[in-house]
Amino acid sequence: MSRPDDVIATLRKRNELWTPAPGLIALRGEVLSRFRVLEKRVRAVCMREDVEEWLVAPALPLDVLQRAGYFASFPQWLTVASHLADDEPTLERLAASQEPARELTTALAAPSAALPPAVCYHVYAALAGRRLDAPIHVTAQGCCWRHEGPRFAPLERCWAVTMRELVCIGTEEDCLRFAGESAEIVRALAEELEVPFTIEVAEDPFFAPTSRGRALLQRVKALKHELRLAVDSDRTIAAASINVHERFFGDAFDIRASDGQPAFTACLAFGLERWLLAALVHDVSSLAPNRAEPLVLELAP
Amino acid sequence: MSRPDDVIATLRKRNELWTPAPGLIALRGEVLSRFRVLEKRVRAVCMREDVEEWLVAPALPLDVLQRAGYFASFPQWLTVASHLADDEPTLERLAASQEPARELTTALAAPSAALPPAVCYHVYAALAGRRLDAPIHVTAQGCCWRHEGPRFAPLERCWAVTMRELVCIGTEEDCLRFAGESAEIVRALAEELEVPFTIEVAEDPFFAPTSRGRALLQRVKALKHELRLAVDSDRTIAAASINVHERFFGDAFDIRASDGQPAFTACLAFGLERWLLAALVHDVSSLAPNRAEPLVLELAP
Repeated sequence: MSRPDDVIATLRKRNELWTPAPGLIALRGEVLSRFRVLEKRVRAVCMREDVEEWLVAPALPLDVLQRAGYFASFPQWLTVASHLADDEPTLERLAASQEPARELTTALAAPSAALPPAVCYHVYAALAGRRLDAPIHVTAQGCCWRHEGPRFAPLERCWAVTMRELVCIGTEEDCLRFAGESAEIVRALAEELEVPFTIEVAEDPFFAPTSRGRALLQRVKALKHELRLAVDSDRTIAAASINVHERFFGDAFDIRASDGQPAFTACLAFGLERWLLAALVHDVSSLAPNRAEPLVLELAP
Repeated sequence: MSRPDDVIATLRKRNELWTPAPGLIALRGEVLSRFRVLEKRVRAVCMREDVEEWLVAPALPLDVLQRAGYFASFPQWLTVASHLADDEPTLERLAASQEPARELTTALAAPSAALPPAVCYHVYAALAGRRLDAPIHVTAQGCCWRHEGPRFAPLERCWAVTMRELVCIGTEEDCLRFAGESAEIVRALAEELEVPFTIEVAEDPFFAPTSRGRALLQRVKALKHELRLAVDSDRTIAAASINVHERFFGDAFDIRASDGQPAFTACLAFGLERWLLAALVHDVSSLAPNRAEPLVLELAP
């Protein structure tokens, strides 16, 4: 077993991982091959018979997050996409500037979209206003954005991460069954990768004070569980979460289940880079010799 | 042969394509299966023996685009990623707001990253300051962002698109050979998909007046070619481009070729959604029956 820092140092030395900007990583070579295998495996464990896959958009309308109460719950994480103001004088001023990157703030239009903090918001938004005859199970993988201030660590805590989610929308019974099955899915995957794990009751880091009480309630009612993978003798990281939202999103997006009531929702979320890190911590010596010959030179730090 | 509008209408009617926000699309069902096949096929034609694949980051540092002269060349397209200011009063004000989406502008930190307008900038940035012993060929697929004002059309002109690029960095001879081979690659793919095509000299839509002259020079020197696919009896769309940048990026990023001179660069770029649209225009009746049973209901428009 290596330490996470040693794994990252090894990957950097092999020129297979680099950080083009704070909180963002790039991969190549053997570690990218490992990541692709993991992506496929996680997709496979989600693609059960009654599950359909979506390709979700890379951004969300701001009103979707507003409807979901996101600004009150997790404003600290929010990342938005903004384009420039469309007027010619603004564009000409920027184009002619010697320091355009510094002058950007005054050239931006009001943001109209958020970069997704999770995949499942796409699903609730698409089903808004619908009544479902039967439970729906959707899976999708997407790039998800959570600004973590300066607390970045490659593969462990990044601004943008690769998330695969499996979402269930139905009755209370549907969602509770889904949560139980999800625990079996993550347990089996951790065993397959031979990484020691625990499954624990958890809570979201709701932003205080507006969401004070929600975290406590979440924990008391055991609505959130995390699969934590061991990455050091005394340290684990959350690599998957199982969340039961009760009627929160069914109410917020006016989605009704077959019983006519606001739908229950639940989701299983995988943070793929963390699974990769945990697997490598226990197995870094198994990386094949570096075959990425043409680039055996030091990449940008 | 159908018209693009009819293809989109068919996909909407099947609930297999929707537009969660202006310029953004989501896919499911049979059309998503088609898209996945196309992704794999385009990757395969790029993965020749001397090519390595990278997983690039979903954003670029602003200084990379500044170094590449992007603000002067294409400011109209630029999209940035911004997180909120980290101070508690700002976050608390937003969290407590009744209209948080409207108050976002005053809560944003200065943008620190751009959403990539093309994949190849990642490659030049990673190789900045290096001297290459041999030409390098890198391929990567990524989500690329170009704001097109209100001119959006699903699968044809979107804010975010899926781009696969194959990038060559080496000597002039390396890049000219690469451009010739790239023309053969796109020609063969269009023939395989049985979509009528042309390959034409083209120019980038440089922003005037700061880049006046560059487009003309590009055309006169035949530095850019587009593969255009027929989507109507009198209309084609650019679905791939072959670009020779001469020493522009070698100079800008201080990359030297084996001859000690600033490197030549060239790239082949595929806009995957446009290939999908063109294939469907010629073949929409071949879509299998809609098997996406659980969601046979109208999704959000």
